[in-house]
Amino acid sequence: MINIICIGKLKEKYLIEACNEYTKRLGKFAKINLIEVKQSNQNLYEEAKKIKKYINKNDYIIVLDIQGNQLASEQLALKINDILMIKPNITFIIGGSLGLHEEIKNICDMKLSFSKMTFPHQLFRVLLLEQLYRAFKIINNETYHK
Amino acid sequence: MINIICIGKLKEKYLIEACNEYTKRLGKFAKINLIEVKQSNQNLYEEAKKIKKYINKNDYIIVLDIQGNQLASEQLALKINDILMIKPNITFIIGGSLGLHEEIKNICDMKLSFSKMTFPHQLFRVLLLEQLYRAFKIINNETYHK
Repeated sequence: MINIICIGKLKEKYLIEACNEYTKRLGKFAKINLIEVKQSNQNLYEEAKKIKKYINKNDYIIVLDIQGNQLASEQLALKINDILMIKPNITFIIGGSLGLHEEIKNICDMKLSFSKMTFPHQLFRVLLLEQLYRAFKIINNETYHK
Repeated sequence: MINIICIGKLKEKYLIEACNEYTKRLGKFAKINLIEVKQSNQNLYEEAKKIKKYINKNDYIIVLDIQGNQLASEQLALKINDILMIKPNITFIIGGSLGLHEEIKNICDMKLSFSKMTFPHQLFRVLLLEQLYRAFKIINNETYHK
């Protein structure tokens, strides 16, 4: 199972539709469990406390962090494939508009960066779902258009 | 003026809405001229011929290329600001599902990469518009949520 912990509910209709579309497509390959943690007004520590409730230490925890390692899509696919051979679940954590508390970054197994650029965290949810879909297409040797 | 040359018409409604939203927001800062070049079936050379018709060599040409330089959002903002002091227009070129012909890459002033990851070229249009919007917010010292 793939858990995605993120902050707040999506506001824009086009983001909701994009996420629904990729979640539906991903359903063929993996169960996607989206956990929307309530935003704490300007308080990362409060958000971290709530996020931790959803973290299972038996799972492989990947934090999305602009300072993390960048992987090509094929490398991410390999990594996901490797992890799922030894762990039951992968949990991705996307911070909110102010990022994530250091405590969350310190308990993760891997910090993953998509870009040097900053994207809105709500749009980022679409990017992660798309890359997960792409990863499973690669793992399963299915073609997928760029 | 910012020209964006890209391949094909957007298919998904959520992508059209996302692009419309960012184009509308960008209107405050710059005129956005979106040029959709017709896709040539599996033929990058044919696409390149069509793209070249829209390239004005007085403009600053930026090709989006996974092998290009990565810039942080603040660096992209600085770069855009610098270019617009000496050039009337910037033209961004986003390839189609098979990328771009080398000829187009060779005539550009800069190759820009957003990520080591591969994204669908249609979703990429949203990412570029969002980063342009972010860049103009930075240039104009306006706050903008992540």
